[in-house]
Amino acid sequence: MVVAGQSWEFSKGHGTGNDFVILPDPGGDLVLTPKLVAALCDRRFGIGGDGVLRVVRTAAAGAPALGPGAAPEAAGTAEWFMDYRNADGSLAEMCGNGVRVFARYLVATGLVASDRMTLATRAGTVTAVVTDDAVSVTLARPTVYGESSARVGGRELAGVVVDCGNPHLVCPVGSERELSGLDLSRPPEIDPERFPRGANVEFIAAAGAEPGGTRVRMRVHERGVGETLSCGSGACAAAAAVLRGEGRDAGVVRVDVPGGRLAVSLTATDCALTGPAVLVAHGSVDISALT
Amino acid sequence: MVVAGQSWEFSKGHGTGNDFVILPDPGGDLVLTPKLVAALCDRRFGIGGDGVLRVVRTAAAGAPALGPGAAPEAAGTAEWFMDYRNADGSLAEMCGNGVRVFARYLVATGLVASDRMTLATRAGTVTAVVTDDAVSVTLARPTVYGESSARVGGRELAGVVVDCGNPHLVCPVGSERELSGLDLSRPPEIDPERFPRGANVEFIAAAGAEPGGTRVRMRVHERGVGETLSCGSGACAAAAAVLRGEGRDAGVVRVDVPGGRLAVSLTATDCALTGPAVLVAHGSVDISALT
Repeated sequence: MVVAGQSWEFSKGHGTGNDFVILPDPGGDLVLTPKLVAALCDRRFGIGGDGVLRVVRTAAAGAPALGPGAAPEAAGTAEWFMDYRNADGSLAEMCGNGVRVFARYLVATGLVASDRMTLATRAGTVTAVVTDDAVSVTLARPTVYGESSARVGGRELAGVVVDCGNPHLVCPVGSERELSGLDLSRPPEIDPERFPRGANVEFIAAAGAEPGGTRVRMRVHERGVGETLSCGSGACAAAAAVLRGEGRDAGVVRVDVPGGRLAVSLTATDCALTGPAVLVAHGSVDISALT
Repeated sequence: MVVAGQSWEFSKGHGTGNDFVILPDPGGDLVLTPKLVAALCDRRFGIGGDGVLRVVRTAAAGAPALGPGAAPEAAGTAEWFMDYRNADGSLAEMCGNGVRVFARYLVATGLVASDRMTLATRAGTVTAVVTDDAVSVTLARPTVYGESSARVGGRELAGVVVDCGNPHLVCPVGSERELSGLDLSRPPEIDPERFPRGANVEFIAAAGAEPGGTRVRMRVHERGVGETLSCGSGACAAAAAVLRGEGRDAGVVRVDVPGGRLAVSLTATDCALTGPAVLVAHGSVDISALT
């Protein structure tokens, strides 16, 4: 148990600009309150990040941390559990860029000896492949559930409801210019009955097809965070919506986000998200100095 | 000389929410390019900060780093030089919160054994006193030079031109409510002939007198950074403008900034800025991982 006055090891990393404070806690000793998460993620009074990744052994995470979404068998097959929290301290089921950075961290620090691994998350287990340039994670295939809409800057935009373990609403717009003009400084208004726990809302514009697959440009507003430079599960949701629009079940969609480039490969059964995952800094944070 | 692929020690700290990446470089070995500064201060791809504080021995800093504003005698009396850079990589003469955090760092790391010290900056030497709760720095007395104005959200606001080693424009507004309503998401427009190198622009509203002195609330737009939670030299400039408005040469002004509380004590000859200065994290940054 950690009390005020102690310091804690941390790393900072990002996947296409979606950035995280990584806290190694193999034994599950850190009492990670929402207040502490918010203080760590505060960009001026803390370290700063879109969220926290607590690195805890699945066996030590405990049922409350794993949450209702985690498959019971996860503890048996995945050594490490990604305890992901949003910057405001709230729990989240999944973070596609977070799990890529999480895998990078495990390999870089030697906590996992192989470049392939299975990881436990609140949205079930995922597999990861780590190379020098990129980390690829294979997530559950997104499920497209039908239509809804988002209200942005007084405009109503039709969208597709997608579940990636966490809820998404993907709204296509007419052009890249229109996409750039959207005001995402406030949360898009979405149907509270359809999304009782909120949703990440993605806005996409076609950016041309190329040999590797369809290309779209995307902006995203993440619940509990605001607009971010990237959202991995959002890219997966966008890819599922794009392929559905093309009448396809499987294929590759390249998703340009403000923070870089992601590739999503969908098959009939799963979804591989690939892109850079970078560790920038390592050190210790003085928890008592956080406010 | 540092080349790509190397890691470098850093700390992160803040003074009333004005935050800094601190780089220890006693021997002056780090080639701190504007690009590297901007990458370190990037809040998602780097560590994040309003600026960088390079901690270098005055004797090792070299004339170019010291800049034209530094007194030649500084090298003889001040062991350490605060090489301050704005988040965009540009040079700055002074940063009042930066020099407080700089002093905190020197004492916390044992680089200075005493809790009192003289420090070299591009705006000349300053003295600092470090206690557990606060750091007080005695800067040159701000000089009030007359009037100018700033344009914010289509409105012209009259202000007072103040020099604190760096240029300031202090604009009083009618109420705290009016202050809260100002849109500082874009730089205030100021007279380019009056401020050829730009200026920090402070907006202040009276918040009542109290036994310890006049109290004002302040918001600030820092050149090369944007709106910040605090600006130490801006608080000094505001205090000088407030006292001038009261027809006084000396006195104490308490300045509430979005990030906390500062106190400014002006005498006929100098200006003491006092407030919290906190170190939050220490570690190493992978310079090759920055983009």
